[in-house]
Amino acid sequence: MDFSLELELAVEAARPMLATGRVADYIPALGAADPNAFGLALATVDGEVYGAGDWQTPFSIQSISKLFALALTLATGDAIWHRVGREPSGTPFNSLVQLESEHGIPRNPFINAGAIVVTDRLLSLTGNAGAAIREFLRDESGNPHLDTDHLVAASEAEHGHRNAALTHFIASYGNLENPVESVLQHYYEHCAIAASCRDLALAGLFLARHGVRADGSRLLSASDAKRVNAVLLTCGTYDAAGDFAYRVGLPGKSGVGGGILAVVPGRGTLCAWGPALDRAGNSVGSVAALEAFTTATGWSVF
Amino acid sequence: MDFSLELELAVEAARPMLATGRVADYIPALGAADPNAFGLALATVDGEVYGAGDWQTPFSIQSISKLFALALTLATGDAIWHRVGREPSGTPFNSLVQLESEHGIPRNPFINAGAIVVTDRLLSLTGNAGAAIREFLRDESGNPHLDTDHLVAASEAEHGHRNAALTHFIASYGNLENPVESVLQHYYEHCAIAASCRDLALAGLFLARHGVRADGSRLLSASDAKRVNAVLLTCGTYDAAGDFAYRVGLPGKSGVGGGILAVVPGRGTLCAWGPALDRAGNSVGSVAALEAFTTATGWSVF
Amino acid sequence: MDFSLELELAVEAARPMLATGRVADYIPALGAADPNAFGLALATVDGEVYGAGDWQTPFSIQSISKLFALALTLATGDAIWHRVGREPSGTPFNSLVQLESEHGIPRNPFINAGAIVVTDRLLSLTGNAGAAIREFLRDESGNPHLDTDHLVAASEAEHGHRNAALTHFIASYGNLENPVESVLQHYYEHCAIAASCRDLALAGLFLARHGVRADGSRLLSASDAKRVNAVLLTCGTYDAAGDFAYRVGLPGKSGVGGGILAVVPGRGTLCAWGPALDRAGNSVGSVAALEAFTTATGWSVF
Amino acid sequence: MDFSLELELAVEAARPMLATGRVADYIPALGAADPNAFGLALATVDGEVYGAGDWQTPFSIQSISKLFALALTLATGDAIWHRVGREPSGTPFNSLVQLESEHGIPRNPFINAGAIVVTDRLLSLTGNAGAAIREFLRDESGNPHLDTDHLVAASEAEHGHRNAALTHFIASYGNLENPVESVLQHYYEHCAIAASCRDLALAGLFLARHGVRADGSRLLSASDAKRVNAVLLTCGTYDAAGDFAYRVGLPGKSGVGGGILAVVPGRGTLCAWGPALDRAGNSVGSVAALEAFTTATGWSVF
Repeated sequence: MDFSLELELAVEAARPMLATGRVADYIPALGAADPNAFGLALATVDGEVYGAGDWQTPFSIQSISKLFALALTLATGDAIWHRVGREPSGTPFNSLVQLESEHGIPRNPFINAGAIVVTDRLLSLTGNAGAAIREFLRDESGNPHLDTDHLVAASEAEHGHRNAALTHFIASYGNLENPVESVLQHYYEHCAIAASCRDLALAGLFLARHGVRADGSRLLSASDAKRVNAVLLTCGTYDAAGDFAYRVGLPGKSGVGGGILAVVPGRGTLCAWGPALDRAGNSVGSVAALEAFTTATGWSVF
Repeated sequence: MDFSLELELAVEAARPMLATGRVADYIPALGAADPNAFGLALATVDGEVYGAGDWQTPFSIQSISKLFALALTLATGDAIWHRVGREPSGTPFNSLVQLESEHGIPRNPFINAGAIVVTDRLLSLTGNAGAAIREFLRDESGNPHLDTDHLVAASEAEHGHRNAALTHFIASYGNLENPVESVLQHYYEHCAIAASCRDLALAGLFLARHGVRADGSRLLSASDAKRVNAVLLTCGTYDAAGDFAYRVGLPGKSGVGGGILAVVPGRGTLCAWGPALDRAGNSVGSVAALEAFTTATGWSVF
Repeated sequence: MDFSLELELAVEAARPMLATGRVADYIPALGAADPNAFGLALATVDGEVYGAGDWQTPFSIQSISKLFALALTLATGDAIWHRVGREPSGTPFNSLVQLESEHGIPRNPFINAGAIVVTDRLLSLTGNAGAAIREFLRDESGNPHLDTDHLVAASEAEHGHRNAALTHFIASYGNLENPVESVLQHYYEHCAIAASCRDLALAGLFLARHGVRADGSRLLSASDAKRVNAVLLTCGTYDAAGDFAYRVGLPGKSGVGGGILAVVPGRGTLCAWGPALDRAGNSVGSVAALEAFTTATGWSVF
Repeated sequence: MDFSLELELAVEAARPMLATGRVADYIPALGAADPNAFGLALATVDGEVYGAGDWQTPFSIQSISKLFALALTLATGDAIWHRVGREPSGTPFNSLVQLESEHGIPRNPFINAGAIVVTDRLLSLTGNAGAAIREFLRDESGNPHLDTDHLVAASEAEHGHRNAALTHFIASYGNLENPVESVLQHYYEHCAIAASCRDLALAGLFLARHGVRADGSRLLSASDAKRVNAVLLTCGTYDAAGDFAYRVGLPGKSGVGGGILAVVPGRGTLCAWGPALDRAGNSVGSVAALEAFTTATGWSVF
């Protein structure tokens, strides 16, 4: 079945929204992104991939990497859930408030604090959290050139007082295994990976295939794949998870680079990208395109 | 297809959990509930209904009524979303804190504050919010004896300083159309409806049938039915929505009477009941039974 | 010693500030106040009273009555401190947030929640909290015409959803002895007393006289008088107590009617009035006049 | 005038309290302090100094150094108040919550966040904030051996994730001039100064002498000295400033080493020390001794 038309129409639906958003500019490297760029890719469970617009242009995946950090940690059989919760936070993604009232246990793995804890664990488990995620993305996308943008990583580190505060704060509660500096380095390394809609849609397919990777091997049990989708749906789009579920109806993870990777269990994945963000930090174009596509196809978990 | 065995097994899975919970006792009428009672019902989209344990025993539906208040309000085509949000709250169901920082707009329609706003609107739209919900439940369940337990309603009112505080607080922000006393009366009236697992499973079927009622008429558009399911999944089980999604994987609404009504889009509904609650206010037995049933059948939106 | 010149100069210092403030308008009766009115009175411990500007014009004393409610309650020897704290709140005067995290024990007797608890206790102790405060003010000021403005009291009640919310919230924690409606009625009655700078300066003299009233009888022990001054200094001017202590250096209590009553222990009292308020709810003119007067005279507890 | 008897009696009043407190043990160097040690010193404005108990034993001054950091900064004529407030915080001394809601401007200079900002400024102004405070204490106390305990400073740094979090957080709001590491080093250096009750009472005398130092030179204007006393009274004893004002009635600054330095404007200073702390972090013995002494002498600013 061919979804070229729906993909094109979804991209068209997104275009008028682009001017209403704002490119993230807390680091210069991200601020230079083209606010008019837009792409959308669909990967189906059989491994086919389609796209429209700038779907093959690499962009900074940012928080989308948090999804892979969690999956790779769970894949080792690790019990991460005593160190990080799985409830929506109700507060902004980089807030320290909740961390204080909940004694250093981040609400979920998709706010910064939670992803830092997961990165810390993945670092202990693999010895190199940044490389582990990079390799996984290369393998699943079949794109050997996919890489960390070291300029972006360095820029994040330079402007990273807030994340340093979060990491020291977590450490003050005894919820960190590795040195603050190492954890931050690996965190920035996987956030600064550059990948295209095509690459990410392929890399996320294991979540639509109940845990099975591109090569047929199993990354997660079917139960764990479902569970990751559940956490994505309730916590994957910052403080707007309820609205995203309401409008798009799919589990998804967004990043301030403008990408959103969404999962259609049993069918495939969608990855949209447009750098202009709404006030919650989600790409305005990406949300609009995903909403248009799911409305047209009737795809929704509900 | 017959799910008698799965229903029985799910009830068995729940039984050992009952002793770990605690019956709500903030009003005497609820505190008298039998902590060992337990039931589970399944209604399929074709209108069949099955059950195990005490599935035909009426209990106080409490917050499950919030789901019907929302659906009936949306059914009129009313634009309620400027008066109540649809994001998870991250705070307890009866908290006033968030209401203050968000200027009287409750986070979602399933915390007390949000349900009070919805009740206020439904009262304006119908002239009798309590009766509207009661009639709807009677119609869908085919149970003409289903009724408000006026003893419970009176007891709620008598011990209702917290809800009175919430309602006055909402009114202080100009987000109430009717007098505080009227809104509270209707709110207590629908919360105090007594219904069985059977009744509620049947009454919720429209959410599994994409908006279509028992008599074939349409209550909600397919889109709106999906959206209500989305809000249920992200906000329906108090401050444990993430955990419920993770373990059960279905949209659901719980009440402190011990009931949980869950939706399996396109297939049917499940309603479990056991008065012993966990710390988040959800029935320990009901969560356990729903988890066991969905694990056995593979039913999940993810 | 004559302070006529200093009083006149302090009034002059206040005048240019009046235009920078804003008259409280949450009830019509207060909103009608003249923003250009301004007065200042000084009462000395020997019972002399001086003034400048509109120092003999009655105004709505509002929260200044909280000081008298506390003093009259302590005067009975009552142990109120297990029901209300004596710490600065760090949050706005009508906030419900802190009340929730501290389980219904208001931070101090000078935020609304705390004054409601004190009024409740005074009502239990006297049978008529409003009358008790009114009589005390009449006795100390020697002004038999001093009275509650019932129009203001009724207007407060009509627009009082926020205070009703606070009172129900306190009741929900079991920290109220009388019915919500009675407590609110007495609370509004004493807040709506109309008195002049002259009246209030005289009525507060017991705090400068280490607890001794106008007629030579003792209201409070010397220790308790000091302690009330301490609570005034740390908590008497809403969320700006630190700034008031820094600029004026005296214990004081302000009201949204524009009055501020300040105590110079061992010397006398000052009462300033000007309806235009700053963002913290304190009279801009009154703070300016008190700062000018204390700078000129060197009066300060520090 | 001789206060030997009152000092002795105050020390006796404190002794039974010592067992009710708990020595700070977040760093080993502090945890080793003797919970039964106790001393009290009085310095009068003419430079005389008296004491009882262990009043000549050096202890870790900890947060008492924050008072000197503020005074030395103000002494340069610097306008620090746009970078730090002067309101009581209503939250624990090391909280990050308020810092977030107030965008990186700490509530007052005596919570950790505020003292870090002041230290940053003093570092910019002097080139060596730690040495500036140390020198000042040596000069005023006449004790050339007074020094930083480098073991304590190193231990603070090693266990200082919370302060590192605060400092990075402040930097993330652009409210830091120097590198995080430098500011923390100087902060720990002045907190880790060891001094006795005698030394501190003498060093604080300028606040009782309206700004004049031991050598007769002026450190602060009389106005600024009063203002520092005002900030001490409203913010000097962590989250218990209201209670301290109520019980002791003097401006004061406490430290987790167990010391409290209090100012009696125009008369002198008192410094008490006992390592066992109450839940707010103030020395139980020191509060009790100061309360006993002020009750006996009638000294109070109120």
